[in-house]
Amino acid sequence: MIPKNHPRYESLILREKIKKAHDEGYLADSGMIAHGRGEAFDYLIGEETIATAHEAIKVAVATFILAKNPVISVNGNSTALAIDDIIDLAKVLNGKIEINLFYRTKERVKIIKNLFKEKGAHVLGSDDDELLFIDGIESPRATASKDGIYSADLVLVSLEDGDRTEVLVKSGKKVIAIDLNPLSRTAQRADITIVDNIIRSIPLMVKIANEFKKKDDKYLKKIIANFSNEENLKKSLEYIKLR
Amino acid sequence: MIPKNHPRYESLILREKIKKAHDEGYLADSGMIAHGRGEAFDYLIGEETIATAHEAIKVAVATFILAKNPVISVNGNSTALAIDDIIDLAKVLNGKIEINLFYRTKERVKIIKNLFKEKGAHVLGSDDDELLFIDGIESPRATASKDGIYSADLVLVSLEDGDRTEVLVKSGKKVIAIDLNPLSRTAQRADITIVDNIIRSIPLMVKIANEFKKKDDKYLKKIIANFSNEENLKKSLEYIKLR
Repeated sequence: MIPKNHPRYESLILREKIKKAHDEGYLADSGMIAHGRGEAFDYLIGEETIATAHEAIKVAVATFILAKNPVISVNGNSTALAIDDIIDLAKVLNGKIEINLFYRTKERVKIIKNLFKEKGAHVLGSDDDELLFIDGIESPRATASKDGIYSADLVLVSLEDGDRTEVLVKSGKKVIAIDLNPLSRTAQRADITIVDNIIRSIPLMVKIANEFKKKDDKYLKKIIANFSNEENLKKSLEYIKLR
Repeated sequence: MIPKNHPRYESLILREKIKKAHDEGYLADSGMIAHGRGEAFDYLIGEETIATAHEAIKVAVATFILAKNPVISVNGNSTALAIDDIIDLAKVLNGKIEINLFYRTKERVKIIKNLFKEKGAHVLGSDDDELLFIDGIESPRATASKDGIYSADLVLVSLEDGDRTEVLVKSGKKVIAIDLNPLSRTAQRADITIVDNIIRSIPLMVKIANEFKKKDDKYLKKIIANFSNEENLKKSLEYIKLR
């Protein structure tokens, strides 16, 4: 339907995926609006993985490999755009996958769980699991499955709500965030922020993970030690300008 | 529902209006994604009417007053966010209002027409009107009502598709565009581009229109003569930076 020579072809394909997810009932209205914000920021960084994101990705992968119970948090948007890449990443990094939705409904959780199941991946965080409140905070922003995010030492979030990120960070978990807006609360509060589109950054994480898995801890720790998220975010801002 | 002290209160209220319009069936899925893009750009200009937009608004109002058959083009997004302001503007400037939808359906057109009707405003461009193709271009991007946009010498568009803007400009009509993305094709092709949120710029246009209506043509023409849209757009870009 979208002609391949359309100047915004790639972007329109993603938009179709998001609309399809909304039609299929697992992406909330707000998820569509959030996608639009992402489109704008991606446009402003040139729709490519900027050097600072590339650096953050390396640190993220190294941190992920060294973690004890790392979990990838998924929602409607990330499922719609990158389900296969997320499954690949979980496999190569030996991480779990958990559903966490801002506008949680039984129906949406069920659809997303089944989408992963059809591809052979198990996801935590559904109503079949024991759900607890992180740090006893009785808020929908603080729920997590017992064996997943609740007990995780590292959580990878993408397109995440600021309040949720805050809960995770305060609870002492390491948070890796993929977020196109370097000024969002999630981007600002995370330990490692990857300012990039998940459709580019997750496949790149898979590639780097395959490489880093062969390295020793010393190598990985050195990569982590040399990184400042604050500095990296500051540099990322410089990429956002209008050409 | 949204607490008044929420740091993003104003923005969330607009988001609710957009979601409501979608629920009511007159705003397409793409309209929600477009709203998200707008949110991001508005955020980047500081969610205020920047000086260059203020200047463009003055020129736009002066041009509007001097036009013979000016028409305000509305769609789902502009109706959802600014229906009252649009009606005010049409009244004070003696302009017509016409519906033009990117994803046109009979149902959406009917709902929007009725929303305006309930508020005492008549809108052209529905299936009750004679619709023609501008310059004979047989494309959904080129339809217009005979007494409205088809014969207009000036069209005010907001949140408009680039192809549509191109058709209007090529046909020799003056185009005023309200668009938060100064790099969009609509912003770049329009004769006068107001880089602002319609919820701020349209009320401001009403205010300035009340003032300018008392002025003579010479005064208005001078304002127009001193304006370069290219220069104004260039300056607008400088406002878009990250704080």
